[in-house]
Amino acid sequence: MRLSQMLFVTLRDNPAEAEIPSHRLLLRAGYIRRIASGVYSYLPLMWRVLQKVSAIVRSEMDRSGALECLLPQLQPAELWQESGRWDTYTQAEGIMFALTDRAERQLGLGPTHEEVITTLAKDLIRSYRQLPVHLYQIQTKFRDEIRPRFGLLRGREFIMKDGYSFHADVASLQDTYQVMYDTYSRILSRCGLTFRAVEADSGAIGGSGSHEFMVLADAGEDEVLYTADGEYAANVEKAVSVPPAAVPSPYRKMETLSTPNATTIEALVAQLGCDPTQIVKTVLYRAGFDNGCCGLVLVSIRGDQEVNAVKLQNVLTGLAANYGASKLLDLRVADAETAQEWAAQPLPFGYIGPDLPDTYLKTTANLIPQFIRIADTTVAELKRFVTGANKAEHHRVGVNWGNTCALPALVVDVRKAQAGDRACHDPTQYLETARGIEIGHIFQLGTKYSQAMQATYTNEQGEEVPLVMGCYGIGVSRLAQAAVEQHHDANGIIWPLAIAPYQVIIVVPNITDPTQMHLATELYTKLQTVGIEVLLDDRDERAGVKFKDADLIGIPYRVVTGRTSAKGEVELVERATGKTVTLSVSEAIAYLQQQVDQL
Amino acid sequence: MRLSQMLFVTLRDNPAEAEIPSHRLLLRAGYIRRIASGVYSYLPLMWRVLQKVSAIVRSEMDRSGALECLLPQLQPAELWQESGRWDTYTQAEGIMFALTDRAERQLGLGPTHEEVITTLAKDLIRSYRQLPVHLYQIQTKFRDEIRPRFGLLRGREFIMKDGYSFHADVASLQDTYQVMYDTYSRILSRCGLTFRAVEADSGAIGGSGSHEFMVLADAGEDEVLYTADGEYAANVEKAVSVPPAAVPSPYRKMETLSTPNATTIEALVAQLGCDPTQIVKTVLYRAGFDNGCCGLVLVSIRGDQEVNAVKLQNVLTGLAANYGASKLLDLRVADAETAQEWAAQPLPFGYIGPDLPDTYLKTTANLIPQFIRIADTTVAELKRFVTGANKAEHHRVGVNWGNTCALPALVVDVRKAQAGDRACHDPTQYLETARGIEIGHIFQLGTKYSQAMQATYTNEQGEEVPLVMGCYGIGVSRLAQAAVEQHHDANGIIWPLAIAPYQVIIVVPNITDPTQMHLATELYTKLQTVGIEVLLDDRDERAGVKFKDADLIGIPYRVVTGRTSAKGEVELVERATGKTVTLSVSEAIAYLQQQVDQL
Repeated sequence: MRLSQMLFVTLRDNPAEAEIPSHRLLLRAGYIRRIASGVYSYLPLMWRVLQKVSAIVRSEMDRSGALECLLPQLQPAELWQESGRWDTYTQAEGIMFALTDRAERQLGLGPTHEEVITTLAKDLIRSYRQLPVHLYQIQTKFRDEIRPRFGLLRGREFIMKDGYSFHADVASLQDTYQVMYDTYSRILSRCGLTFRAVEADSGAIGGSGSHEFMVLADAGEDEVLYTADGEYAANVEKAVSVPPAAVPSPYRKMETLSTPNATTIEALVAQLGCDPTQIVKTVLYRAGFDNGCCGLVLVSIRGDQEVNAVKLQNVLTGLAANYGASKLLDLRVADAETAQEWAAQPLPFGYIGPDLPDTYLKTTANLIPQFIRIADTTVAELKRFVTGANKAEHHRVGVNWGNTCALPALVVDVRKAQAGDRACHDPTQYLETARGIEIGHIFQLGTKYSQAMQATYTNEQGEEVPLVMGCYGIGVSRLAQAAVEQHHDANGIIWPLAIAPYQVIIVVPNITDPTQMHLATELYTKLQTVGIEVLLDDRDERAGVKFKDADLIGIPYRVVTGRTSAKGEVELVERATGKTVTLSVSEAIAYLQQQVDQL
Repeated sequence: MRLSQMLFVTLRDNPAEAEIPSHRLLLRAGYIRRIASGVYSYLPLMWRVLQKVSAIVRSEMDRSGALECLLPQLQPAELWQESGRWDTYTQAEGIMFALTDRAERQLGLGPTHEEVITTLAKDLIRSYRQLPVHLYQIQTKFRDEIRPRFGLLRGREFIMKDGYSFHADVASLQDTYQVMYDTYSRILSRCGLTFRAVEADSGAIGGSGSHEFMVLADAGEDEVLYTADGEYAANVEKAVSVPPAAVPSPYRKMETLSTPNATTIEALVAQLGCDPTQIVKTVLYRAGFDNGCCGLVLVSIRGDQEVNAVKLQNVLTGLAANYGASKLLDLRVADAETAQEWAAQPLPFGYIGPDLPDTYLKTTANLIPQFIRIADTTVAELKRFVTGANKAEHHRVGVNWGNTCALPALVVDVRKAQAGDRACHDPTQYLETARGIEIGHIFQLGTKYSQAMQATYTNEQGEEVPLVMGCYGIGVSRLAQAAVEQHHDANGIIWPLAIAPYQVIIVVPNITDPTQMHLATELYTKLQTVGIEVLLDDRDERAGVKFKDADLIGIPYRVVTGRTSAKGEVELVERATGKTVTLSVSEAIAYLQQQVDQL
């Protein structure tokens, strides 16, 4: 493609709307334009990148045996009412755009397709002999984000590959899950990205296993914890670890001490001269369930550790049935004011221990009449520890679990793992931290949707049982921008060769010089003949402008037909390294062909 | 692909929802499933067809020099308000789905992209040196149709290629328009379709030229008129012709005759014994303009001819300014009741002449105080004709235009051309009629949108002038179904080779016969090696079921490894003709490769 014939517009200044490098660069280099908040036009260069990413996704999905299809973007409300998600998606969370057609029927714009595919499966799958089967699509999706930002990273209209597999049993699901794990790894490798597959929380969507694929980049919204041996990596929400050992307690006997103004761990440590690992701190949460009842939760955790809200949420979801509810709706730290609302007498905030008596609770119809007491595993083994005295301005020291202070019945891991913790699989390995952009997510869904929507099949024994499902998503437009976030420098984008819009750009410094133009045109034609994707910058612009633009748009190889043209030679510059060599036309072609063939 | 591993489900019975063969067959053969009214899932076989059509469209568009991009489906209301189409599209016609986001901003789901592309052009195009430029996309579009029907032919969610070109002047637009005419012709030819490019009306959208590309099929909703010499073809709405000559009038002098109950041409002819070509009939319309005023229109046309509502609409649109309006909103035949509402005295319905006095009109604020009188060209040359006497139960005969009966000032072609008329370009050619499905439409838009949205560029003289635009659309999902409507028989679909989901299907009559399976597998592998797309029907089904399914899904070539297998031979059946030959494996491969290479 000749640049003179392309609608090629670059910007010199950084656009105000962009907060991170990749977003700025895609705007400046003429890849995207914003039409509305979180809604972008993909200009011709961007569209080429998206098609290349899609082609890699498609080839790997096809290789895995999945079948490509295309499902509707308009989805009838009834399907989402059947699965029980309509209200959550259009109102509570409000992330699905909803609309009404001329016949006053409600429709949603698909943010995901579990409902549609499960309906199809119900129609098409009758027998175990049709299983397993895996359908996928590459499609524009919609989410009415609260805060669209970072360009294509959090948009309201974006391109995704989503796939759904159906199985006779969990073993078959796990096989496909592993195939998808490998497929996603290959997709990201082929796109030239540095990434980590990390264990992810699957609490909200259900199911037994889930991994996220994180493209590593400083601007990433997610934190990843991993070990250097490559054996462990998890999203911080899911990560487990062995915390540092507690310092042995200096307290010989239990006593209650006056600790005025010691409502934080720091203040307490300063006053008593103890170590944070010797303290059992108690954090108060307020949990609301879907049957309208709510409870106050006392979480005990070691003084040097923090509660992981996602882990806690999963624990409370598991407890919902105990309180006659089917799910947890809402969980938040209870501040003094909120907690006091539910208390029969003033709560000793800052001085609460794990054994705060239930008599503190008000007797109201929808309040669970006992504290929901949870101990993190870090506190169970502590001895002669420090904790609140359930009395303002006082702490107890030298406390042991037992009659004086009962250990909660529920001892679980609700701790936030952090960099520096030891790994569970090998205590010689320590967790390290990295930032990532979530590009892919794979889930073992189980029968959540098939049960709700009665998508069953007849098994070998002739029984009608629900289909077992998996789902697998990868963000195509997000991946493209993440590649820029991972691969750029001060001068612009540095596309990985596999997803670059063009592989080579030929820059003619002076188009009025017939020798230069002739050599450039010759090279342009020859490169096209051998199947290399090439841009020819034949614009009537200064050489400096052309070099700057070539760097900005990030084409992997730049060929310059400058002073060396007279000798029939060209300069070949590698965008990533700046490495420059002077070659004859045939050498340049051979070199470039070799690079492209390696893809 | 092995059929046993595909989600392959065919239906024996005709689904109730389908009215035409192509819709029935796509459902029965497992190509599509309905999710909501006018909204379909494209199952894997269908998706392959759509990808093939898209690939042909893409390759021809790229060859034409157009640049592919992707524009948003979510479109801000403001853009449509700027162009003046928001109210018409979301309310008056209501064909655009509208929705409100969480910030209470209004958005539309794109049925077309003139507004978005013009906004982009305004941002990106500054100088004549960037022109011409042509951007296109292949994308799912939305229309809230009043009556979705015929499967993919009139859906609410469908796939289109739409392109928009920008020019410095009309000459450049016309060049690109011609290139698109040729491009569309090549696309349809390559897809294996019989089609006609016809002159089309461009009145509503404006601009000076427009052609539709019609795939010929009996179930087509459009009527096409054409001449056998290939020199002329037009949509019936646009078609012009030379009607049969009028029979000379027998009436020597003007007189008024009593003609009781002769309110139709048939009754009048029967009573007077005259010929319909000797009659000037007057049809009454009611026109409403956008400034709220309305008028009664008297259209005079020869008794044997009909008024073409689209031509009349264009004439009245041209007259809008005369009445202080900017456009015609509404035009319909005025029945006795409607017309009477605007009349000061009872109208002589059935006996109205072209000279009905304006005194018949009521004097109300928003009614134009004169009849809008239009004469079709067929009546201007008539002599001593028959027409209404403007008096119940009476007609005049032997009337000449002049003092007695004034010829309307506006003499234009508002006649509906019909089969049997002579062609304008050559009176020895007669118009013939055919039914077609509109698959493509190309328009010379001119400056309609660029003016409304201030999309200007600086010309060579340094002046800022509006961009000249063209737009070009082709229905991808519609084309796929039209192909079925044109190519099927009682047994199922007969895909043209270029867009078939697979080119060959190997049917193994008995999968328990190792000779058959071995030969089939060998052929399957070898065909794949040479790049032929092949299905292997290795299902545990009776041979009869497999043959029926192969015919139903319409794969162009069926290879059967039956009784001839022992000799290492296969039977090759051409789906379209049923022609069967027995060949060795290598002969079969060579033959099939030859067919595919011809694409």
